[in-house]
Amino acid sequence: MVNRYLNVIPLDDALALLSREFTCIPSAENIPLETASGRITARPIFGSYSVPEIHLAAMDGIAVRSVETKGASEQSPVTLLMAARVNTGNVIPPGYDAVIMIEDVWETDGNYTIRRSASPWQHVRPAGEDLAESEMVMPSLHCIRPHETGALATYGITRPEVITVRIGLIPTGSELVEAGVRPAPGQVVESNTIMAGAMLESAGARCTRYSFVEDSPDKIRTALKKGCGENDIVIISAGSSAGTKDYTAAVIAELGEVLVHGIATKPGKPTIIGRVDGKPVFGLPGYPLSALTVIRELVLPFLRNYGLPVPEPETIPAHITSAYPKEIGSDEFVLCTLGKIGNRWIISSQSRGSGVQMSAVRANSYLRVPRASEGFNAGDLVDACLMVPEKEAENALLLTGSHDPLLDHLADLSRPSGISIISTHVGSMGGILSLKKDECHAAPTHLLSPDGSYNTAYLHKYLPGIETGLIFVAGRQQGIVSRENLSLEELPGHLFVNRQKGSGTRMLLDFELKKAGIDPTVIPGYEREVTTHIAVALAVKSGEAEAGMCVYSAAKALGLPFVPVVEEHYELAFRGDHTDDPRLKSLFGVIRSEPFAKVLTRLGGYDPTRTGSLRWVD
Amino acid sequence: MVNRYLNVIPLDDALALLSREFTCIPSAENIPLETASGRITARPIFGSYSVPEIHLAAMDGIAVRSVETKGASEQSPVTLLMAARVNTGNVIPPGYDAVIMIEDVWETDGNYTIRRSASPWQHVRPAGEDLAESEMVMPSLHCIRPHETGALATYGITRPEVITVRIGLIPTGSELVEAGVRPAPGQVVESNTIMAGAMLESAGARCTRYSFVEDSPDKIRTALKKGCGENDIVIISAGSSAGTKDYTAAVIAELGEVLVHGIATKPGKPTIIGRVDGKPVFGLPGYPLSALTVIRELVLPFLRNYGLPVPEPETIPAHITSAYPKEIGSDEFVLCTLGKIGNRWIISSQSRGSGVQMSAVRANSYLRVPRASEGFNAGDLVDACLMVPEKEAENALLLTGSHDPLLDHLADLSRPSGISIISTHVGSMGGILSLKKDECHAAPTHLLSPDGSYNTAYLHKYLPGIETGLIFVAGRQQGIVSRENLSLEELPGHLFVNRQKGSGTRMLLDFELKKAGIDPTVIPGYEREVTTHIAVALAVKSGEAEAGMCVYSAAKALGLPFVPVVEEHYELAFRGDHTDDPRLKSLFGVIRSEPFAKVLTRLGGYDPTRTGSLRWVD
Repeated sequence: MVNRYLNVIPLDDALALLSREFTCIPSAENIPLETASGRITARPIFGSYSVPEIHLAAMDGIAVRSVETKGASEQSPVTLLMAARVNTGNVIPPGYDAVIMIEDVWETDGNYTIRRSASPWQHVRPAGEDLAESEMVMPSLHCIRPHETGALATYGITRPEVITVRIGLIPTGSELVEAGVRPAPGQVVESNTIMAGAMLESAGARCTRYSFVEDSPDKIRTALKKGCGENDIVIISAGSSAGTKDYTAAVIAELGEVLVHGIATKPGKPTIIGRVDGKPVFGLPGYPLSALTVIRELVLPFLRNYGLPVPEPETIPAHITSAYPKEIGSDEFVLCTLGKIGNRWIISSQSRGSGVQMSAVRANSYLRVPRASEGFNAGDLVDACLMVPEKEAENALLLTGSHDPLLDHLADLSRPSGISIISTHVGSMGGILSLKKDECHAAPTHLLSPDGSYNTAYLHKYLPGIETGLIFVAGRQQGIVSRENLSLEELPGHLFVNRQKGSGTRMLLDFELKKAGIDPTVIPGYEREVTTHIAVALAVKSGEAEAGMCVYSAAKALGLPFVPVVEEHYELAFRGDHTDDPRLKSLFGVIRSEPFAKVLTRLGGYDPTRTGSLRWVD
Repeated sequence: MVNRYLNVIPLDDALALLSREFTCIPSAENIPLETASGRITARPIFGSYSVPEIHLAAMDGIAVRSVETKGASEQSPVTLLMAARVNTGNVIPPGYDAVIMIEDVWETDGNYTIRRSASPWQHVRPAGEDLAESEMVMPSLHCIRPHETGALATYGITRPEVITVRIGLIPTGSELVEAGVRPAPGQVVESNTIMAGAMLESAGARCTRYSFVEDSPDKIRTALKKGCGENDIVIISAGSSAGTKDYTAAVIAELGEVLVHGIATKPGKPTIIGRVDGKPVFGLPGYPLSALTVIRELVLPFLRNYGLPVPEPETIPAHITSAYPKEIGSDEFVLCTLGKIGNRWIISSQSRGSGVQMSAVRANSYLRVPRASEGFNAGDLVDACLMVPEKEAENALLLTGSHDPLLDHLADLSRPSGISIISTHVGSMGGILSLKKDECHAAPTHLLSPDGSYNTAYLHKYLPGIETGLIFVAGRQQGIVSRENLSLEELPGHLFVNRQKGSGTRMLLDFELKKAGIDPTVIPGYEREVTTHIAVALAVKSGEAEAGMCVYSAAKALGLPFVPVVEEHYELAFRGDHTDDPRLKSLFGVIRSEPFAKVLTRLGGYDPTRTGSLRWVD
């Protein structure tokens, strides 16, 4: 096996090399005050005039010379020779040095009488009280906070000068189509530079996204020259591997030099760092999660060298639910879901391919596993890096177990109460085992016992002595999805797509086939496993399989024929000691709500008769 | 004394009333994906097609039928009958179900030979691997994170529908001028709606700032009607008190109803809550810090009712340096400076008027003092609400003591190392006492002893037995600032502005007057105290006083004549046990730097000969 990369180095070394090789001077730009929040001053800002410039009344009343008021009291009121009516904010006339509140003044025929003396400068806003001419308002490299825009307006600063880093983003690839165009087979929506742009701009960079460039060295060369002329940094998206159409490294080498080709991270290995016209040029891997990782772990930290404030992620110690073994040598970055069960934080990795952008949508956290580490054992305490505010992570409700399309709708209907439902599809048995380990808030489950009862026997068996509850979500129809209206009895000889072992649907199918006297080995593809009802229906729709078993709503969503096999009970199991968990209570409220009843009707194949009823198992 | 407000209620009651009286339904708008980061989805987003829509190669290699590869090994290679060359991302032709990496393939005359069998679906990205048609991408009320814009692009979502709250901001007041215009005496730059707009937009609201409205009930009425027609919420800035030109409440009452006039907060009392056309209308107080408080404590929390995510401030327990006594009855909000001395967080209130916007620029934290509280004693542990990230607060360097204009420049030059200098001007003696209590990192000081030495005698006396260090900042000229070149001897009979007792400059002046045989009581205004050199010079420039004592650079900055009296030593005192504090070390580096030497020359009146030299006192 050939080493496809010229020069693979650890991430830390790549960051050190960037600091060593490049003098990072930010660009500066003057921007409208209304857009200045979160931006970083390029220079110190000094007051060019005092605020206020002249003494002002701080109260409604009369301006007086305090010496004239001496000795005034209830017993010996003083009628003033010199006094001027002022409202708050009015200029104090020259020679006057105090204001008496209007409530303390008696006026007769234009004369003012007072019964208390005034101290010099009382109720006066002296010139420069807020800011004196020549004083500094804020230093350079200060992050302008929203409320400070008001102060800057007052001090006459309407277009503050702030720093930025101009970053050119060049998408390459002949297969690309613009977002909004449905890609034909083999085409791909260009999304990596959109993502990179949003991530880099949130740190204060100013990104320019260039037109798509075909896989042609000449065209990439032209684009790179232009990008280097117009920016402080250039990022070329895709073409950074060492395949036949990967021209990025060659073009950078031609116009300048390649400093690094390959960084020892997973994902993100096919990354290039080069220099053209003295400017850093990055080659970004094409897989979205690789690109995400390289932007987050390499480019964003590098922007700190320019003075942009890139916060470190907040971390929380959490127990990892499954072992995460790894080989020494690469830093690995794992997208995860995190939630709080009782007082323990629980984290689970989402071990999926780097083309699965949904992993980054579902994730609320990630793990950094250092290159010297051999990974984690199940239960280890690890540092979860947060991708959402901690409060949002606390409001995560972990549902682990059987999949059903209505879980998406439960998640949506729970949002108004602030709950973020995170569903993990490990099948009913997986859910029961997660509940046993107290690693989820509730487990969706539909496990049939030989006596015809659902779920209770399994809770008795796997959580003996632990009080648990079951809330009924819906009765639901399971059946055969196909393109040709196949029934259970017609499955032999047809290419099948199955659910994973331990899922209630797989157990149900095994049970029903046995009842019907059908040997699974005569069903081709029986060993091909996917983890959701929708994935089964989609495999059938795409032609990957001829039939599978799923719930009615999944077949309906994809417009496929469905032959019912059985109606079963889909319930949520939870531990009795979490009954008062406000997240669970909120979910129960949603299950019992009118909007959820409407969802059941709309999706189809659900029986709402017992929806929301609760029973206890002990 | 008249109660100027109709109906003063506690803040909590005002928030409860808002929740009770108004059904808060956000507006929705479709926005470009590039601007969607941080916005909140108005509706759940479902996949309208699968990604990928068809099976794709996940590697460069050949697509095969896995059954054909059975039995292949080093000993018995298999030459395939059906195989197709594919690159990563290519469509897998129908009938093929696996990909073999090109490194594992031997090609001869267009025929492919393999030495290992392929398992079904290996190196294939199945249709729907990322997202299956009909699956939910994200629920409603989901905060779109920057990296998710990439996923949305991939799924064909180019203009996501997000919620917002349309807020109309109406500035009122005949004295207003637009930012960028230098206000004539009695005029004010309108800044409150700029500040409110930035604060509210940072929470996801969409603000419209209307033209200035004069203090006229008719014009305010017209503006309010228009604002209510075009927005979900209207905020009228200023005119919310009960003075002669405060028409806001009357106009709201005429068009709808006033629900609250006056909330029991300091600052922020003159606040109105009303209803017009069923919509909430706020009357915002005119003083900037009052307006800031009402936006932060009343309007922003209310926006949560519309589904906008308004984070609670993070809090840190900190020791308060001075007593903060208060009467029961109002919630008070106090802008503060916060820093970490050793392992203790130390917080100080900035007790200044609500017109001083610089207080909110200088503050990195604030205190909420509940209405039932009688305040705090010095040293109490209080909850500091952070206005900056915690890390930035940790990098605050507290300098407490004598003022000098060059402190601004030290603050600016320290920014590249991430240090935020917070100077508090309490005079040299105040600084020594703060150092004694270990409540600052360093104390700028210039205290002359009768033996002609500076600072050491005071450190011996007030910090006995504690090792301290002194770093020399600069020699500096003190003298008399005036408009007419007055000397110390000419002060009697001229209106004076003084520095506060305990400041080194005041002690120096007292000493020099005594030496010159001048009785301070023959100098009018000797009791008028300000706290900075610039404030002294400004009082002279504005005509408030005829003369004062300050450093040369302050007189120069304001272009005033200066007659030298003495050159003195301006040093920073610090405790020996903080010598290794990285913030202090960084400051010492700045003091010894070339850019600081240039600042000393530019400002004028400083002798850099001993700048940066260090001595120990024990």
